Amino acid sequence: MTATLDLARALIARRSLTPDDAGCQEILIERLEKLGFRIEKMRFSNVDNFWARRGTASPVIVFAGHTDVVPSGPIDQWVSPPFEPTIRDGMLYGRGSADMKTSIAAFIVALEEFLANNPDHPGSIALLITSDEEGVAVDGTVKVVEALQARGELLDYCIVGEPTSNKKVGDMIKNGRRGSLSGTLIVKGIQGHIAYPHLVKNPIHMVAPAVAELATTEWDKGNEYFPPTSWQISNFNSGTGATNVVPGHVEILFNFRFSTASTEQSLKDRVHAILDKHGLEYDLEWELSGKPYLTPKGSLVAAISAAIEEAYGVTPELSTSGGTSDGRFIADICPQVIEFGPLNATIHKLNECVGVADIDPLKDTYRLTLEKLLK
Amino acid sequence: MTATLDLARALIARRSLTPDDAGCQEILIERLEKLGFRIEKMRFSNVDNFWARRGTASPVIVFAGHTDVVPSGPIDQWVSPPFEPTIRDGMLYGRGSADMKTSIAAFIVALEEFLANNPDHPGSIALLITSDEEGVAVDGTVKVVEALQARGELLDYCIVGEPTSNKKVGDMIKNGRRGSLSGTLIVKGIQGHIAYPHLVKNPIHMVAPAVAELATTEWDKGNEYFPPTSWQISNFNSGTGATNVVPGHVEILFNFRFSTASTEQSLKDRVHAILDKHGLEYDLEWELSGKPYLTPKGSLVAAISAAIEEAYGVTPELSTSGGTSDGRFIADICPQVIEFGPLNATIHKLNECVGVADIDPLKDTYRLTLEKLLK
Ligand SMILES: [Zn+2]
Ligand SMILES: [Zn+2]
Repeated sequence: MTATLDLARALIARRSLTPDDAGCQEILIERLEKLGFRIEKMRFSNVDNFWARRGTASPVIVFAGHTDVVPSGPIDQWVSPPFEPTIRDGMLYGRGSADMKTSIAAFIVALEEFLANNPDHPGSIALLITSDEEGVAVDGTVKVVEALQARGELLDYCIVGEPTSNKKVGDMIKNGRRGSLSGTLIVKGIQGHIAYPHLVKNPIHMVAPAVAELATTEWDKGNEYFPPTSWQISNFNSGTGATNVVPGHVEILFNFRFSTASTEQSLKDRVHAILDKHGLEYDLEWELSGKPYLTPKGSLVAAISAAIEEAYGVTPELSTSGGTSDGRFIADICPQVIEFGPLNATIHKLNECVGVADIDPLKDTYRLTLEKLLK
Repeated sequence: MTATLDLARALIARRSLTPDDAGCQEILIERLEKLGFRIEKMRFSNVDNFWARRGTASPVIVFAGHTDVVPSGPIDQWVSPPFEPTIRDGMLYGRGSADMKTSIAAFIVALEEFLANNPDHPGSIALLITSDEEGVAVDGTVKVVEALQARGELLDYCIVGEPTSNKKVGDMIKNGRRGSLSGTLIVKGIQGHIAYPHLVKNPIHMVAPAVAELATTEWDKGNEYFPPTSWQISNFNSGTGATNVVPGHVEILFNFRFSTASTEQSLKDRVHAILDKHGLEYDLEWELSGKPYLTPKGSLVAAISAAIEEAYGVTPELSTSGGTSDGRFIADICPQVIEFGPLNATIHKLNECVGVADIDPLKDTYRLTLEKLLK
């Protein structure tokens, strides 16, 4: 047993189904207080969060993570119970083992080792821990960031412990995420009996060429860090159910995953231009569910990449693929945010696990990154 | 009170909600037997129908109609109860007054008058009466026609008493009806998370250009009697409900109302060609819900048009517009089928009615038509 494995097991043993922290944060707080961190609990609604900081100087380097986990799914399909951490064939099994309790344990032990050798480090070290990342994510990181922003507390570097590794641990760092912009489009026609086509305006027929054009539009070519922006319809519903009635309207839900080569406003303007060009009468409501963020190559990417090389012997690739993460909120007050953690192969699945041999190198990666940035 | 008004009231007073005849046909049969008609009751499943014929020679002229009515809707919104025939301000109110109990009463009294003067008329006169026109229409006219066809009993002329008049009684005869051909189209894609567009095939996006093409295709130009064939989608549904999932398939229900300028097969072939051209993977199930029928200008159209001129002082227009009718079934065994009856303004609505002054001219129209065709 190592200190990191030990702490990871203690966290996995707590049934912290989102947004219930189930006491995980108290374990962390106790360890951090011993290390001289000043703890601020920030409970919003029914969500436990805390902000911990050691030091007042710049640069400020933050570890960010979440103690909540997604539901286990059918327990009888787990080889060992999801909330009983179990080592089997070199793997540590349990809900949250990969996403992201092992990363949190690695943070804490990395800090303990770093501070033992560098009690008077320059700059500041902080932790932003939430229990509302897997759920609606409205009372978690976003609220803590707002509180920090309101009092002018700015950050320099942030490492989010999300499971970003793809085929082997260390092969991928997320240095940004695409934005997510959703639209609810209602296109209006004139309802009527299908036998009297001259009296109806079929909204399905009217919107079809606009959908065809939107589906084939090149929104941008992406850039060095991002794939091209994509537009997808998730739901298209129209019709009264009756087979002899032309419906009066169509409802379409769509979503952009967009790169920093486009902006929220440019995408909205271009969609409206296409709908208007096709002469449609419509209502369109927009919702920005995540701004894109990007951390170009720089001191943080260099430090963690070098740390991964040392700890795992692997050269990480930069990526901005996949869904959104809390990184998008932290990027508002922090110029450099990256995400790095275990393999993502089993997250949110049955029999979630991490390799036991990969755990201490993760702790080393975080510690080495601290050593490189705070010297 | 006239004999036709009297009989119309007697029929309206019977609550013959489709497919329940509620004794209407017994009233008719009693009158027809007195006139020397041979009656064949043809009950199929729970539907009363009868075939009545007087004479064995050609030509055979048939009156066709239905005794069933649609539901009344909210009774408290009727000024007088729907099954209490009531004259008010020159109108006869009651469910079925326009569709089509007054037409049936006019048939009967026209026959009584015609036979009083022409007891030894040439040819034959027949009636085809059903109580399953407003419902599913599977055990009504279609079954009687099959029985006649099976024994080789062919018809020459048929007048269906549907309410075809538009602005004033006599202004419109239906000399045909468009066909109705429906399709259920499933277009297949590949479902997946909206954040990974390279792993999905969005069936909504894929089908959109095909829908756009189908919606703007000119299927035919119609002809002297028919408007152009129209194609309309009634229902288009796709999506899991989730906003972050690209769905795996689209379901589209569509319908052709088609003229005799196209055929069922030509329309099917052209739809498949367009779907194939767009490279879609799909299943398509077809249902022919009504063949088109057409009675070109000829002896029947000439006779009834002249009769309408005499009775109403109005020159009727030929039309094939609107929904399907039982005429499509009779056309299988009868080369000339037309539909003529009261104003259709109130049919299937609250406070259905016919003008009292329009009733006897309708009876005269039917009698004059008989006189012109059987002399
Ligand atoms: Zn996570
Ligand atoms: Zn009718």
